[in-house]
Amino acid sequence: MPLNDIVENACLQRWWDNLRRHPQQRNTPQEADCELIALPGGMAAFTIDTVAEECAAGFYTEPETIGWMGATVSLSDLAAVGAEPVGLLVAVTLSDPSAQEGIARGLASACRAARTWVLGGDTNFGAATSITCAAIGLAPEPLTRVGCHPGDGVFVTGKMGLGACCAARVLLGFPFPEAEFRPAARLAEGRQLRGIATSCMDTSDGFLATLDQLARLNGVGFEISTAAEELLDPRALELCRTHGLSTLLPLAQQHGEFELVFTAGEAPGYPCIGRVTADPDIRVGGRSLNTGAIRNAMPESAGDLQRYLRRLGELLR
Amino acid sequence: MPLNDIVENACLQRWWDNLRRHPQQRNTPQEADCELIALPGGMAAFTIDTVAEECAAGFYTEPETIGWMGATVSLSDLAAVGAEPVGLLVAVTLSDPSAQEGIARGLASACRAARTWVLGGDTNFGAATSITCAAIGLAPEPLTRVGCHPGDGVFVTGKMGLGACCAARVLLGFPFPEAEFRPAARLAEGRQLRGIATSCMDTSDGFLATLDQLARLNGVGFEISTAAEELLDPRALELCRTHGLSTLLPLAQQHGEFELVFTAGEAPGYPCIGRVTADPDIRVGGRSLNTGAIRNAMPESAGDLQRYLRRLGELLR
Repeated sequence: MPLNDIVENACLQRWWDNLRRHPQQRNTPQEADCELIALPGGMAAFTIDTVAEECAAGFYTEPETIGWMGATVSLSDLAAVGAEPVGLLVAVTLSDPSAQEGIARGLASACRAARTWVLGGDTNFGAATSITCAAIGLAPEPLTRVGCHPGDGVFVTGKMGLGACCAARVLLGFPFPEAEFRPAARLAEGRQLRGIATSCMDTSDGFLATLDQLARLNGVGFEISTAAEELLDPRALELCRTHGLSTLLPLAQQHGEFELVFTAGEAPGYPCIGRVTADPDIRVGGRSLNTGAIRNAMPESAGDLQRYLRRLGELLR
Repeated sequence: MPLNDIVENACLQRWWDNLRRHPQQRNTPQEADCELIALPGGMAAFTIDTVAEECAAGFYTEPETIGWMGATVSLSDLAAVGAEPVGLLVAVTLSDPSAQEGIARGLASACRAARTWVLGGDTNFGAATSITCAAIGLAPEPLTRVGCHPGDGVFVTGKMGLGACCAARVLLGFPFPEAEFRPAARLAEGRQLRGIATSCMDTSDGFLATLDQLARLNGVGFEISTAAEELLDPRALELCRTHGLSTLLPLAQQHGEFELVFTAGEAPGYPCIGRVTADPDIRVGGRSLNTGAIRNAMPESAGDLQRYLRRLGELLR
């Protein structure tokens, strides 16, 4: 399965058509959730992420959510490489200056939860609110997305589907309070997986997108034997029940929940949910899924989220 | 002169009313152009900056300019602390996907000029184009904004006013080609100033704003003895002549040119343009300037750039 069949991957490739890589960079552009560079004192991990589309879509309306999520999306990338955070740099664009204090409180809460700090930042004013966080970490034995082999077990650090609940609040009127969407970056879990995980990636774009990307990068497939029902948080199950949705939908849609998906021979304390396969196919509950089409449904919907939902429904029928 | 009389400083203070500092952070929030943290291998410097308002104002319309400036604003902060760049993290929001290649070329050119690399990034799509770059550097003997004393000389790494020319292209129809605005981060100069400069800051917000901030942070004033005419690039002088503007205007307006302003006992190779004074006043060519009011003219103009220009004209009359 070619990496660049995925619209998002092809977009990343266009940057690298024009840029040269750092000669000491450990990872290729898609190979890890962070950029890995050896500094004089050891391996360091860096990442940057913007939260803007979730604000524009109305998923995050409370300033505390915007601050929390800005920090968490980047800290989750540090978690996925097993890094210890040093701190965050934060660039905020405010459309409403009165949101500043709430965003600061959300940042402060996420930093407390992750035992890290905001180091500094930049404030701008503009038509649309957004937050961009760069995270800095130390990663003596970094995990990457590459290295799993057929036969390895597949594991996940928690229940999935709360990202879907948060989106469904806006798209389907599902009664999920925004303030309950406070995913924590799995930093302790990531560090514990050093030397154990053969590949690792966070579910920031949803569970199936994570499997699809790991499959493309490793030239493998996945057979997930645990039923979708058991992978989901009870609130996501409730969403599927009340709206008559496939239990695959919360795993397919791309507003993820920031768990870590990883492969390993064994991983004490984590239930094994499936296996890496030589066959380049992604199967959940015995069913083969076109995860490439599922991932491309968003860019092909041109920002129309109701159309995206209908397209996903067709692909999962 | 209280730091928080400046609207921008007061805004920064509101973040820190809600956030805790990293216990190993070397600098207070305003004390340096970068965040300085001791890592296991030595002191590191980090900074983040967004270029958005310049795009919205039409100052940067060519994708190459946006890429070049995105990299340069952050690399210039590394220069101002005397750091050696490790690389950049780049988050771009594209309003027009076809701009991607030009932005990538601009980033590549700025990285080549600074002998550094883009390490990785994030692409988003939205209504307004913006670029946020985080820069990472090694800073074994960091320069800060704090440490100058009355009697120190004042120096600048180059001629000023091209930022004003770039803005005047839009605001006054001044015939300055956008592609000529390619300021280079003064990285070699910054490193050369280690152990020499007693304070250093870049002119990203304009020369007078830089002096004003250094004055507030150090409890000093500045007497600039070199005439404004001699501080300016010939194209900025031409702007003043053809539009009947005060030669102080290119130094007062806040679209800067990314030179370094620094203080030192002496600085071989750089002409001394003035002195640090005990009197907390900022004087240029014998004239005392209300640099606080000059800095606050932008936020008080509520985004109306013609009103901002008129207000600056009044303050410099």
